[in-house]
Amino acid sequence: MNSMHNWLLPEHVEDLLPAEAKRVEALRRVLLDLFRVRGYELVMPPMLEYLESLLTGTGHDLDLRTFKLVDQLSGRMVGLRADITPQVARIDAHLLNREGVTRLCYCGTVLHALPADLGRTREPLQIGAELYGHAGVESDIEIQRLLLDALSAAGIRDLHLDLGHVGLFRALVTRAKLDAGLESELFQALQRKDVPWLKTLTAGLPPEARNAILALPRLYGEPAVLDEARAVLPAWPEVVQCLEQLGTIVAALRSRVDTLLVDLAELRGYHYHSGVVFAAYVAGSANAVGQGGRYDEVGKAFGRARPATGFSMDLRELAALAPALPTRGAILAPWSDSPALAGEIERLRAAGEVVIVDLPGHAAARGELGCDRVLEQRDGKWQVSALRG
Amino acid sequence: MNSMHNWLLPEHVEDLLPAEAKRVEALRRVLLDLFRVRGYELVMPPMLEYLESLLTGTGHDLDLRTFKLVDQLSGRMVGLRADITPQVARIDAHLLNREGVTRLCYCGTVLHALPADLGRTREPLQIGAELYGHAGVESDIEIQRLLLDALSAAGIRDLHLDLGHVGLFRALVTRAKLDAGLESELFQALQRKDVPWLKTLTAGLPPEARNAILALPRLYGEPAVLDEARAVLPAWPEVVQCLEQLGTIVAALRSRVDTLLVDLAELRGYHYHSGVVFAAYVAGSANAVGQGGRYDEVGKAFGRARPATGFSMDLRELAALAPALPTRGAILAPWSDSPALAGEIERLRAAGEVVIVDLPGHAAARGELGCDRVLEQRDGKWQVSALRG
Repeated sequence: MNSMHNWLLPEHVEDLLPAEAKRVEALRRVLLDLFRVRGYELVMPPMLEYLESLLTGTGHDLDLRTFKLVDQLSGRMVGLRADITPQVARIDAHLLNREGVTRLCYCGTVLHALPADLGRTREPLQIGAELYGHAGVESDIEIQRLLLDALSAAGIRDLHLDLGHVGLFRALVTRAKLDAGLESELFQALQRKDVPWLKTLTAGLPPEARNAILALPRLYGEPAVLDEARAVLPAWPEVVQCLEQLGTIVAALRSRVDTLLVDLAELRGYHYHSGVVFAAYVAGSANAVGQGGRYDEVGKAFGRARPATGFSMDLRELAALAPALPTRGAILAPWSDSPALAGEIERLRAAGEVVIVDLPGHAAARGELGCDRVLEQRDGKWQVSALRG
Repeated sequence: MNSMHNWLLPEHVEDLLPAEAKRVEALRRVLLDLFRVRGYELVMPPMLEYLESLLTGTGHDLDLRTFKLVDQLSGRMVGLRADITPQVARIDAHLLNREGVTRLCYCGTVLHALPADLGRTREPLQIGAELYGHAGVESDIEIQRLLLDALSAAGIRDLHLDLGHVGLFRALVTRAKLDAGLESELFQALQRKDVPWLKTLTAGLPPEARNAILALPRLYGEPAVLDEARAVLPAWPEVVQCLEQLGTIVAALRSRVDTLLVDLAELRGYHYHSGVVFAAYVAGSANAVGQGGRYDEVGKAFGRARPATGFSMDLRELAALAPALPTRGAILAPWSDSPALAGEIERLRAAGEVVIVDLPGHAAARGELGCDRVLEQRDGKWQVSALRG
């Protein structure tokens, strides 16, 4: 063991040092307060759960990303959460047990055994909000507005929001009676928008389903795409309903976001989501800054199906994109037992000023403390003055 | 897999539901703000570290309590932090690299493979503050006052603070040239205050060291114990210095805490601490609500020894002891597109009120929302009125 290397961290794992931690903490409060005044109650599920509970109702991706270990107390497999949303669904389904609408929010570290991407951390600080118990498009709109409000409160500008609906592809799969193998291949081909592959895969399907599936990759762009979709997709009731829901959402959000795009081949979280899905992007970042959608089926795995929609963000990525906080220097106070000094320090701190007591013997390193003012006695009174270099 | 049981959590692992999470979050902010205005900068070290880094400079206890697993990316052993203090020491030693005094604070989940005690969680939410770079008793006093201020801000009353000094026992061990085996046995016997066992163990020691060790278990109580200690312990310079430090601290803290006790046989964290140690207790809780001490040797393991002192608490235990928050009901608003309503909702939320939009179709379950007021239109204006049962 070489002590020179003891401070190296595993790949895709980082410390947040003071400047960054301060931004993250400030943003955490802004967002949790924003959720709170809209009726979203904070919950704090644990890091550690039995594996079958943690992975219930989720997809293979999450399984691969979950750190697993044996619990010494029970001998059973436990996992470290890689996503908080399923935990919150469990809390809604089993612990709160309400009949009506439940709004919950959370903020906590999740761990990924493998990073989602080359440039991404294995310890996202996941923050999000979830709305349970309402199946109508009103709750989709509330959640999407909440995401936009949150990004706006974080100071994020030039936002674009992508809207999709996994119900469309699901309807086509059901109507065409596709087997799971073909469904899975079509899903992959659609995600890549690989039209030649899609053509091969759909060769044997009824023309109506085939044409619909082949149309999906080009149904991407400004909301007018929805008119085109109505023209080219079959007028099955479930397809019409999906397009109507998207139309209602577009009307409700249009004025609230810089760019609103519809992407009918978007199937992110297909194994998990059941309805409208969405993702917010900002210039300068390839990854979505926030994403979510409807997942009505997840609660069923816990024995109680509940309509559900929500979103999540990585607070650390968001803090890196958010504008810098105004910085203010601290006040240096001498180390002394004077009750008058102690009173003045207390008064300044209560007013939000950072007052640092200068412990004896560190004059040479005072510059490290970030003080731009000093508390000193003048005319028998303790007063703040500019720190002279 | 039985879906009825998917929601059970591992032993000593809990969800924090809304009422408790709200208390924890409120207290988290109060304490981090208190640290901040005193110059303690927030850092956020990761959950996951290489095992040798995580356990560097710490004792066997922490090793046993640490969850370990193999990192898929590197093939190396990693651990989930069971304590944040060594991580903060690593940040001070290697990342900030300052010459003078550095004040840091943190708040985060730690994981224990085994609970510290029968009634305790395996997921404490550790919050604490650390002061690096100052060896004098002034920094011990600053840290202890900070702990007392934090507990006071949390609303904790009837506090008692126990003070000890691991330097005393260390001095006796060094002077009597004890081997590691006997040192370890004496340490255990002292922790249990097992005087017959201490008599057996010290039978062959020089009378001065023997009498001193046998005296330690009864040197417990009001600060006057320090006078007795001066009379019965040998007047070696290192012993005199320990007692002087404790005397200075007693004088500085006496007026700030309900009960101040000195316990010269207290060796909590002996493998880790190097000087004054302390723990705060409150009526109705067997465990310390906060504890800490000096640990000048820990940084050395990272290749850069720095004087260090600090404390930590479990924010969840503290929140359970703290007085209840004042609760205020929410305001129910109808679901409507009215811009006047939207404006009024925004105004109320900006003023800190929780305003919950009543999604259509949930009249029967409205009672679950916790609203005591309603926003309704009267005389052409949106106004808040009491919610009629």
